[in-house]
Amino acid sequence: MKVNEEDMQTIWFDEKSESVKIIDQTLLPFELKIKDLKTLNDSVNAIKNMLVRGAPLIGVTAAYGMYLASKENNSIDFLIKSGEILKESRPTAVNLQWAVQKILNSISSIESNNVTEVILNVANTIREKDINACSKIGDNGLELLKNIYDKKKDKVNILTHCNAGWLATVDWGTALAPVYKAHRNGIPVHVWVDETRPRNQGFNLTAWELMNEKIPCTLIVDNTGGHLMQKNMVDACITGTDRTTVRGDVCNKIGTYLKALAAKDNDIPFYVAAPISSIDFSIKDGLKDIPIEVRNQNEISYSTGLNKKGQIETFQTVPSESQCMNYAFDVTPAQYITKIITEKKIVEPNEQSISSLMIK
Amino acid sequence: MKVNEEDMQTIWFDEKSESVKIIDQTLLPFELKIKDLKTLNDSVNAIKNMLVRGAPLIGVTAAYGMYLASKENNSIDFLIKSGEILKESRPTAVNLQWAVQKILNSISSIESNNVTEVILNVANTIREKDINACSKIGDNGLELLKNIYDKKKDKVNILTHCNAGWLATVDWGTALAPVYKAHRNGIPVHVWVDETRPRNQGFNLTAWELMNEKIPCTLIVDNTGGHLMQKNMVDACITGTDRTTVRGDVCNKIGTYLKALAAKDNDIPFYVAAPISSIDFSIKDGLKDIPIEVRNQNEISYSTGLNKKGQIETFQTVPSESQCMNYAFDVTPAQYITKIITEKKIVEPNEQSISSLMIK
Repeated sequence: MKVNEEDMQTIWFDEKSESVKIIDQTLLPFELKIKDLKTLNDSVNAIKNMLVRGAPLIGVTAAYGMYLASKENNSIDFLIKSGEILKESRPTAVNLQWAVQKILNSISSIESNNVTEVILNVANTIREKDINACSKIGDNGLELLKNIYDKKKDKVNILTHCNAGWLATVDWGTALAPVYKAHRNGIPVHVWVDETRPRNQGFNLTAWELMNEKIPCTLIVDNTGGHLMQKNMVDACITGTDRTTVRGDVCNKIGTYLKALAAKDNDIPFYVAAPISSIDFSIKDGLKDIPIEVRNQNEISYSTGLNKKGQIETFQTVPSESQCMNYAFDVTPAQYITKIITEKKIVEPNEQSISSLMIK
Repeated sequence: MKVNEEDMQTIWFDEKSESVKIIDQTLLPFELKIKDLKTLNDSVNAIKNMLVRGAPLIGVTAAYGMYLASKENNSIDFLIKSGEILKESRPTAVNLQWAVQKILNSISSIESNNVTEVILNVANTIREKDINACSKIGDNGLELLKNIYDKKKDKVNILTHCNAGWLATVDWGTALAPVYKAHRNGIPVHVWVDETRPRNQGFNLTAWELMNEKIPCTLIVDNTGGHLMQKNMVDACITGTDRTTVRGDVCNKIGTYLKALAAKDNDIPFYVAAPISSIDFSIKDGLKDIPIEVRNQNEISYSTGLNKKGQIETFQTVPSESQCMNYAFDVTPAQYITKIITEKKIVEPNEQSISSLMIK
């Protein structure tokens, strides 16, 4: 998508330097910095410290992480171990496990001198497929927004939580792909952007994406969405998902559940954009079976912004002796989800409908 | 209540200097500063810029503001006009209107040379009555927490939003009064403190109060409460209210509605602590009839904290070109409220029960 009028993606393989290039998302929206990943360790740190984040992008980064690992040591034992380290770097998103497994499957019966090349090919394919899947999610979701616009014949107001835009994927995004497609198809859209405390991915990333694409958006704190929905100022909510169960429970950024409750209470559709790679067909009960990552409390007690001199600085927002609890995700039960938008088709949040995605 | 082991209140009349003393709450939790209010204008600014906040404390400050106005000019015309200016300083809380009206009623048929003294007496009385009302809300709410403890026989976990502690009143607080009384009665309590973006009254004020009273508390971002309720980590929610309608709709800090939805969804009691002065018996439909204050967008795009040198500094957290919308309150419909705790008794969120509070 566009950054300062130029096309850009979040991750790519640079043939010349044989390294993987990423946008360091921890510096946005104030600084656009491209960073090289040269080792397995670089990849693990990029995922763990959220230089890259978003379930699909984490998956692609892990795939390239396996490639970088194979350059260090292409033995199967080392690669299995590397996969474990990558999987442990973020516990909630299922795409990470999915990508590592895809890589390992691809090298299960090949000559050892081909391993690095094969893994790079698979990683490149995963990356390409992610772009296509997101574009198709956009096309499918576009129909839903078009329906709203055809009835309302006025600007469509969309509320989104966290960042499930192109920065969470390679390109297009998941939740924002339908918004981008609608905008390019002449449907007037406006996005309410949840701040998404504690890491502020809404303000830092979603708003930055939308402003670069010249899509009208308004920043709101996470507390505001309910009021907007009560006052008919939201036509649809769309979020991403880090893991969706086979019955349609959606694990996504902490706070998603609260917005889904408000949408239900006000008869507003709550759509979840989910690449099939983020669906965990092996589990049903999201509340019981999805591990919820607890992150460092410093993410709550420190914030980053511009100081008086206009420099990026991290400042402390609560006294040092404060005790904080930092759950990164919550689970929205299927009953609060209206539709799940995948690259294949739009499905209902129930086992029968979601299972149909498994058939090849 | 206690600050560094010593008793303190939020506002008092200082006979020696004939001025009104307040805690400047915009500097908490990093600095405790007492400020003098000497003129009507000082009072209006203190309310508008939130040096004092919280519906009951705003009412008391307005009463003293009328006293300070009468020292400038004790004509009835000037005082009526002063009352209008005070009422316009924050539009949502009903206590402000209530306090100004109480003062104006008190001087409707007295000699002009007594006006200043009479107003001071009434303001002092309003202040004293606020302390008593909050203490009684604490006693009444204590019974609810005691019931939970008697059943659970383990630590009672309370979630609160914004600050409805003693800093929102003169002493004791509203929502936190039952917590303080429970703690002093040996009931083990723990409080989940919502950050309460954009002004962070939860982190800045509620946590500061609780830590000074040595009550265990954990700071969470506003997105987290739903997840905690799903995981049985909350036994009750208690919030304050800026205006409650006669049928029990509760207007309170933006985000309250989202927590009430989550409490309902998880069968957790949602209690609202409401001094009778915050009940607006003249309206029923909170969503339709309560004006919702829209505040400056700088409250969203700037944050205050400690810089690297440990000094208080205000930081810019989103790019300057960002558009923000800053609604200060939302309305929680009566159906999501379990009980309303007043100084007289605990009432049900319906017209019959709430109307009974009107009878003198």
